[in-house]
Amino acid sequence: MNPRARFLAALRGEAVDRPPVWLMRQAGRYLPQYREVRRQHGFWEVCRQPELSTLVAREPLERLSLDAAIVFSDILTVPEAMGLGVTFGPGEGPRLVNTLSTAADLSAWTVDGVAQRLSFVSEAVRHLRTTLEDRYGILGFAGAPFTLFAYATEGGGSDDFAKARIMLHQQPWLAQKALGILADVAAEYLAAQADAGADCVQLFDTWGGLLDAEDYARFCVPALRRITQPLAARGVPVLLFVRGGAHLLPVLADTGAHGFSLDWRVDWREARARFPRSILQGNVDPILLMAGADVARDRVRHLLATMLETSQYRRCIVNLGHGIHKDTDPDAVHAFCDEVTRHG
Amino acid sequence: MNPRARFLAALRGEAVDRPPVWLMRQAGRYLPQYREVRRQHGFWEVCRQPELSTLVAREPLERLSLDAAIVFSDILTVPEAMGLGVTFGPGEGPRLVNTLSTAADLSAWTVDGVAQRLSFVSEAVRHLRTTLEDRYGILGFAGAPFTLFAYATEGGGSDDFAKARIMLHQQPWLAQKALGILADVAAEYLAAQADAGADCVQLFDTWGGLLDAEDYARFCVPALRRITQPLAARGVPVLLFVRGGAHLLPVLADTGAHGFSLDWRVDWREARARFPRSILQGNVDPILLMAGADVARDRVRHLLATMLETSQYRRCIVNLGHGIHKDTDPDAVHAFCDEVTRHG
Repeated sequence: MNPRARFLAALRGEAVDRPPVWLMRQAGRYLPQYREVRRQHGFWEVCRQPELSTLVAREPLERLSLDAAIVFSDILTVPEAMGLGVTFGPGEGPRLVNTLSTAADLSAWTVDGVAQRLSFVSEAVRHLRTTLEDRYGILGFAGAPFTLFAYATEGGGSDDFAKARIMLHQQPWLAQKALGILADVAAEYLAAQADAGADCVQLFDTWGGLLDAEDYARFCVPALRRITQPLAARGVPVLLFVRGGAHLLPVLADTGAHGFSLDWRVDWREARARFPRSILQGNVDPILLMAGADVARDRVRHLLATMLETSQYRRCIVNLGHGIHKDTDPDAVHAFCDEVTRHG
Repeated sequence: MNPRARFLAALRGEAVDRPPVWLMRQAGRYLPQYREVRRQHGFWEVCRQPELSTLVAREPLERLSLDAAIVFSDILTVPEAMGLGVTFGPGEGPRLVNTLSTAADLSAWTVDGVAQRLSFVSEAVRHLRTTLEDRYGILGFAGAPFTLFAYATEGGGSDDFAKARIMLHQQPWLAQKALGILADVAAEYLAAQADAGADCVQLFDTWGGLLDAEDYARFCVPALRRITQPLAARGVPVLLFVRGGAHLLPVLADTGAHGFSLDWRVDWREARARFPRSILQGNVDPILLMAGADVARDRVRHLLATMLETSQYRRCIVNLGHGIHKDTDPDAVHAFCDEVTRHG
């Protein structure tokens, strides 16, 4: 099977020789060419120039045995396009200039024309698809509504995103309205990525794990459905990654996602028992890649054995339980991917 | 029932008029007198002067309807006493000078005489007990071995404590030896606090939730048993708090802890079903206290109803699912505690 055929078969629940593999943040700072490109070009510049974004998205495919590429972009493209003013300082997290705390702040969000302002991402997908032809799967992605809402309220990174979580309870109507707007923009944005050549899309709910299941069900699930329903109607599979979301498994089924990208702390067997018909993706602890090639190979073997036993490799995608750490040795990543291909 | 009688009854699994209540970080920056004391005295200075530590430990008892006090101290007393050089810069997290990365680093840890160097904490407990007489319960505490190990390897705070987690897999023998040493020191340290008047002790595993259940079972559980077993033999109840540890419930029973302080993301009913004979403590999201007094009262009512229904209030302690946030309005904390007392 060629990589894309394997990736599509996994998404459709068809038989595969082995599960396909791609890695969250596979085009990232652990790769030398990526670092070189980023020395010369700012982050948004790489995102906005299709040749550059394809260059960095392709680098891991050329070095490693991978089945899919993910478009080079960021989860904060949506708030940036809505006028929240997103910047990335050197060596620090994102900053947002226009934060959300009142209904007036929300009214200032510019939703009109946002699809046009985000078109550089579908252009990046289109360029990547043209370059890769049909040899590799391609994923589009977006930040999940709550994670974008969390950055919008806090104005940047945070340990606890207290402002976002307070707003859920102090101004629930405002929070729900903001989440709905973010969801609708994300749905259109992801549909455009699929139209441009993405085989599926992933939602990154980096901070959803801060919420308990009750709050996640009340605020996040309805917003996520506003994304998964229109995409399902178009036949676009949606994968949902919730970091630190092991406790949220009981409410994730209601999101309507086609599959779940599992955090490393989720027990694969428990997730498979809960979601027998869903795609499951993951979930090796990325830190283990930093403990060397032998540890990486050992974990992949263990994961593949579990995937084989629980679903004969069907509806499985090998991945990490979080993005690759920037200090990871590329040789360990190579060993990880190589071990997957040995099971074909 | 007086507060201490209620607290002791809960620890023993006896009938109570209502569950006792105390709050993690109840003596903290949200309180004006605490801030005033800290303007005049450094953190270690407050810990080391029994009059000062009792002053700040008593402040919440005087303002709020609480059943227990926790000794004013820090989880990093143990590495400080072992020569790792712990400092707290203004407005930042802890820093450790002597970090752990090799067997030689571990050999440099000074275990001899550590009980003597930590005696200021049991002196603080003794002073607090003398002051409170038998009106209030008193908790002693320590950092759990993995959390101390995480700070020792990283040299300070971290998002992912990559160094600690890498060492578990790259040098497991060194990690296990370090965890064992930290556990044995903690066991002796906690026994001294109990001898000085603490009714029970709590272990704070702030970073244990970064590990998956397999790693937690392999590395943390054996270390925790080295603490819970000698304390159980002395009749000292041990409560274990693992932040972000919802996914670890299946392996926590093996720790031998007398009870579990639940993170806000743990489902109370699930925990009670899993631990019918254990003390359960928690688990209101501290962020909800920042959403105002009405939200705080509402959540307490909901929690108490669950406690009543699942175990007739037995083996329950009302608390938060994490420490009080420094920006919390004391009035909301008052409402929270007041609502508990209304159920007596």
